[in-house]
Amino acid sequence: MPVVTVNRKAHFNAAHRLYNNEWSDDRNADVFGKCANVHYHGHNYELIVSVTGEINPQTGFVMDMKILKDLIKSEIEDYFDHRNLNEELPEFKTLNPTAENISVVIWEKLRTKIDTKLALKITLYETPRNFVVFTGN
Amino acid sequence: MPVVTVNRKAHFNAAHRLYNNEWSDDRNADVFGKCANVHYHGHNYELIVSVTGEINPQTGFVMDMKILKDLIKSEIEDYFDHRNLNEELPEFKTLNPTAENISVVIWEKLRTKIDTKLALKITLYETPRNFVVFTGN
Amino acid sequence: MPVVTVNRKAHFNAAHRLYNNEWSDDRNADVFGKCANVHYHGHNYELIVSVTGEINPQTGFVMDMKILKDLIKSEIEDYFDHRNLNEELPEFKTLNPTAENISVVIWEKLRTKIDTKLALKITLYETPRNFVVFTGN
Amino acid sequence: MPVVTVNRKAHFNAAHRLYNNEWSDDRNADVFGKCANVHYHGHNYELIVSVTGEINPQTGFVMDMKILKDLIKSEIEDYFDHRNLNEELPEFKTLNPTAENISVVIWEKLRTKIDTKLALKITLYETPRNFVVFTGN
Amino acid sequence: MPVVTVNRKAHFNAAHRLYNNEWSDDRNADVFGKCANVHYHGHNYELIVSVTGEINPQTGFVMDMKILKDLIKSEIEDYFDHRNLNEELPEFKTLNPTAENISVVIWEKLRTKIDTKLALKITLYETPRNFVVFTGN
Amino acid sequence: MPVVTVNRKAHFNAAHRLYNNEWSDDRNADVFGKCANVHYHGHNYELIVSVTGEINPQTGFVMDMKILKDLIKSEIEDYFDHRNLNEELPEFKTLNPTAENISVVIWEKLRTKIDTKLALKITLYETPRNFVVFTGN
Repeated sequence: MPVVTVNRKAHFNAAHRLYNNEWSDDRNADVFGKCANVHYHGHNYELIVSVTGEINPQTGFVMDMKILKDLIKSEIEDYFDHRNLNEELPEFKTLNPTAENISVVIWEKLRTKIDTKLALKITLYETPRNFVVFTGN
Repeated sequence: MPVVTVNRKAHFNAAHRLYNNEWSDDRNADVFGKCANVHYHGHNYELIVSVTGEINPQTGFVMDMKILKDLIKSEIEDYFDHRNLNEELPEFKTLNPTAENISVVIWEKLRTKIDTKLALKITLYETPRNFVVFTGN
Repeated sequence: MPVVTVNRKAHFNAAHRLYNNEWSDDRNADVFGKCANVHYHGHNYELIVSVTGEINPQTGFVMDMKILKDLIKSEIEDYFDHRNLNEELPEFKTLNPTAENISVVIWEKLRTKIDTKLALKITLYETPRNFVVFTGN
Repeated sequence: MPVVTVNRKAHFNAAHRLYNNEWSDDRNADVFGKCANVHYHGHNYELIVSVTGEINPQTGFVMDMKILKDLIKSEIEDYFDHRNLNEELPEFKTLNPTAENISVVIWEKLRTKIDTKLALKITLYETPRNFVVFTGN
Repeated sequence: MPVVTVNRKAHFNAAHRLYNNEWSDDRNADVFGKCANVHYHGHNYELIVSVTGEINPQTGFVMDMKILKDLIKSEIEDYFDHRNLNEELPEFKTLNPTAENISVVIWEKLRTKIDTKLALKITLYETPRNFVVFTGN
Repeated sequence: MPVVTVNRKAHFNAAHRLYNNEWSDDRNADVFGKCANVHYHGHNYELIVSVTGEINPQTGFVMDMKILKDLIKSEIEDYFDHRNLNEELPEFKTLNPTAENISVVIWEKLRTKIDTKLALKITLYETPRNFVVFTGN
């Protein structure tokens, strides 16, 4: 059967700051600039989840988009939306919540919920001009 | 010569319903939900056709975009636009018109018209939030 | 208090055909072209609902966007989504479902649910290139 | 001379929470839901500044867009970007930083810097699906 | 009958430079900066034509969008596309081709072709971040 | 460490014409149509620069986006913006400034400035409907 990638968009809003706990405040300010602001700032994160696999000949689906939509809602949107990533999510207690690291965390959370016969890719827009892609490698 | 991908966007509007002829109406309703609505619903399909190959040193083109634009118009837009996919297009008499299957049909229609030295990829948006990609594998 | 317009986007997918019941099929085909296709075609309708009024000094809101979002979902998205407008919605039994007429129907449905101190405007995209605006006049 | 509106887009990222200082935490949670999260959340705010007036016959400009761009940068982007609106900006010490109130604050800051012969309108996207418009009335 | 605005998007690509023939080159460079570059630069202009009037009760249309689309093509796209505005279009022999002035020229060209019972508005994007609006006043 | 792609958008406006110096004007007109217009036309080029590599465990970055943004500004935006590609840039004295060839030139200019452990990909939109991708192969 043909191998197709299905993609679903979602979004969430969150606050964060960039900060390495092992560095001084001065070095954090040097490296991260205003992104290290102690009072936090925030983003509308736009997310694209991409799942690749063979078309099921009975349904015509690679994966039912309603199931994928619900999975993204329960695992990602409900978990990240209107949160302070540094303060409220245990994944970022020591991990710096850069777009790169957030995309890896999202990939890991979804990977456990999606059939391993299907490849998984995460695209995450931090702003309309900055985005990252993670494929699990 | 450098290998570049050229991409051209197009669009068409069509009606469809998701339905497996070999299943009962109840099973179709179970699996496809309101997408199985007997009266059909519809979409604005946004299409991106991607063609990859070496740059021709005389023209600077991988493929003349005007030719690609005209080809997409005659082979895809004129064929799909303002159609009921289930009722009017023979490809979907027994094939369920999911975005996945439509992308494969579009790929097959264009593949016969484009030089085989050029790779072909189809991206099809069923809605601004759902889209599929098919590369011919 | 300052007068501000708050706007909320939503969307639904539907099938329709353009058709005047009082005309012959030939005249319908002449006027509406392929939009009169007897098998229907469809669109992803993108909707913007705009509500104008004074800011409430206690909440800072003109209207709570969560309430507006829920109202659009229950009154418009649930009613129009995945429907055949001509066949399934009584408003269009004799009214031609052009974008213009759909925008008026949406305005009328929401007008009864929103405080009359607030002005109401409907913007409806039939395709990314065609859209209409109705303000109730 | 013809009267034209010129529009310039800009953006900034900020953290905020919705909160009325005169209410209990419970009432704030009731009214503002997860937007009242004590740890803040954030947005990419997209801003459109619209200036209306007669075309200057010598330049063909209503207002030099480079001057407008620089004004938006110095007065708005530099002031709001990567800030916590509740904690760091005096305008929001007692004013709830809803999109409505932010649009009024932006309008007031720019109004003092732009020739009063020119009308001023602010459009502010809090998310791609929620936006507000303020014209100074 | 309800009064609705119908909007149609179009686009064209053109070269221009900003220049006042009555000024010295130095003054042009002072006022227009790199936009005065003697070798020209260019833009993808995105155009929205908005027509407001009563819905025709027989068609459900304010104005047939196919007719509007064809009119924009013949009067605007074919006239402006792939042109050097300063060198090739007589309207800009002495008129500086700013976005403001181009919007007025487009309005005047279309105004003569559209029923005067219908109001006409032009929105012209010079870049995704800069756009102008002209309503004929 | 995980391998992630970071992407940054930028843009510039330029004039060009498509032309092969070794051909007659007639042959140029035949092959390039109105794109060969001797007076030039122009575009808003939208650029996405994509950089792939391992996340640095100390910063959480693949590459500091501020550095990438500044690099794109100094090497690409400042070099191409408001230029006539054929007349003013030495790269296109004999190379036809098609989107394909421009993407290769951009790639080559950035490749010398970015750590060779990082892969580099260029996506260049000539119009919202035409774009090219070059990965260096």
